[in-house]
Amino acid sequence: MRQAHHQLTVFSSQGRSLYEFTRELRDWVSSTDIQVGMLTVFIQHTSASLLIQENADPTVRADLERFLARLVPDGDPIFQHRQEGPDDMSAHVRTALTQIYLVIPVVGGAPVLGTWQGVFLYEHRYEPQRRKVLLHLIGE
Amino acid sequence: MRQAHHQLTVFSSQGRSLYEFTRELRDWVSSTDIQVGMLTVFIQHTSASLLIQENADPTVRADLERFLARLVPDGDPIFQHRQEGPDDMSAHVRTALTQIYLVIPVVGGAPVLGTWQGVFLYEHRYEPQRRKVLLHLIGE
Amino acid sequence: MRQAHHQLTVFSSQGRSLYEFTRELRDWVSSTDIQVGMLTVFIQHTSASLLIQENADPTVRADLERFLARLVPDGDPIFQHRQEGPDDMSAHVRTALTQIYLVIPVVGGAPVLGTWQGVFLYEHRYEPQRRKVLLHLIGE
Repeated sequence: MRQAHHQLTVFSSQGRSLYEFTRELRDWVSSTDIQVGMLTVFIQHTSASLLIQENADPTVRADLERFLARLVPDGDPIFQHRQEGPDDMSAHVRTALTQIYLVIPVVGGAPVLGTWQGVFLYEHRYEPQRRKVLLHLIGE
Repeated sequence: MRQAHHQLTVFSSQGRSLYEFTRELRDWVSSTDIQVGMLTVFIQHTSASLLIQENADPTVRADLERFLARLVPDGDPIFQHRQEGPDDMSAHVRTALTQIYLVIPVVGGAPVLGTWQGVFLYEHRYEPQRRKVLLHLIGE
Repeated sequence: MRQAHHQLTVFSSQGRSLYEFTRELRDWVSSTDIQVGMLTVFIQHTSASLLIQENADPTVRADLERFLARLVPDGDPIFQHRQEGPDDMSAHVRTALTQIYLVIPVVGGAPVLGTWQGVFLYEHRYEPQRRKVLLHLIGE
């Protein structure tokens, strides 16, 4: 049984949006030569999420963003934490309602994603950020 | 240290609803003969979730469904992705707000679920589906 | 490769609120002497959550609580499951919308938490409870 870990940086170049990094994930898993195991993806931030979602039709991501923007209004008057602007606290709430880590079994040297599943970083801040994502794989 | 993995199919025979598969999970863990370890449950879809919830009183599931139906309206006019009907995009949003994988420690040859915790597949589409769930266990 | 597991009890002395236990988590990981691995934190209840959130500014937690209290009203008339009071079903819904387990890679003998990330138990019931949290670590 072996382990491998790696730090990935995802740059959210357009600010608030979803950024797919399925290929980077597959490439790294492949590079470890581990055939069967468990992959963890962990983001070291509290205002961006990780999400596995439909990656075929881009309207899914646009619709999800519209839904979250309505559910968690930026600059909501109930928020006191607004030092960094109207997207500060809403980004924390969006993160709490989604996930900051993913766990995906690995079989045959690849994450067992379904046909339509892509792995995304969901940037919740308006401004582009460099987000640190840690990958860990245990298996053999 | 050893690993085992297995694919389970959960048939959502009544369409949108919660389907418990705690027993199938326990039986498979038991069959691996691994006493201590970590169990991952992963669903290879983007319109159904996995959920650990109260399994004693069925009104909990009915109430949760009523809550989600109000929070994420089917056929919401803000949704553009509606090729497969009014439950298409709402199913993706419900999935994003819940989980598509579970991680449960195993001790004494069984998942360490609390007294009232059951493991459910949450089907978000109206029509019955055959859902693929991958189980992975590492331990000894 | 080795494993360790441990049961922690978190007492939610003020009832509904967030309780940080990052230090207890770090101390236990350190005591196992495992340098690289994967840590799972699992709560054996369905009316309290686990959450990784900003731990610098306490208004973040207050704002998150105000948001959830508005999103999931206690005693909502759509809820039938209310045996234990108006916070009974809302606690289950809040738990479904957040997480009951966390997975955090361990590198250099410590969980790889970002600078502002703290680990919290989120008690959703009004009354103080003794909550059982299981820790599991695999690595070497």
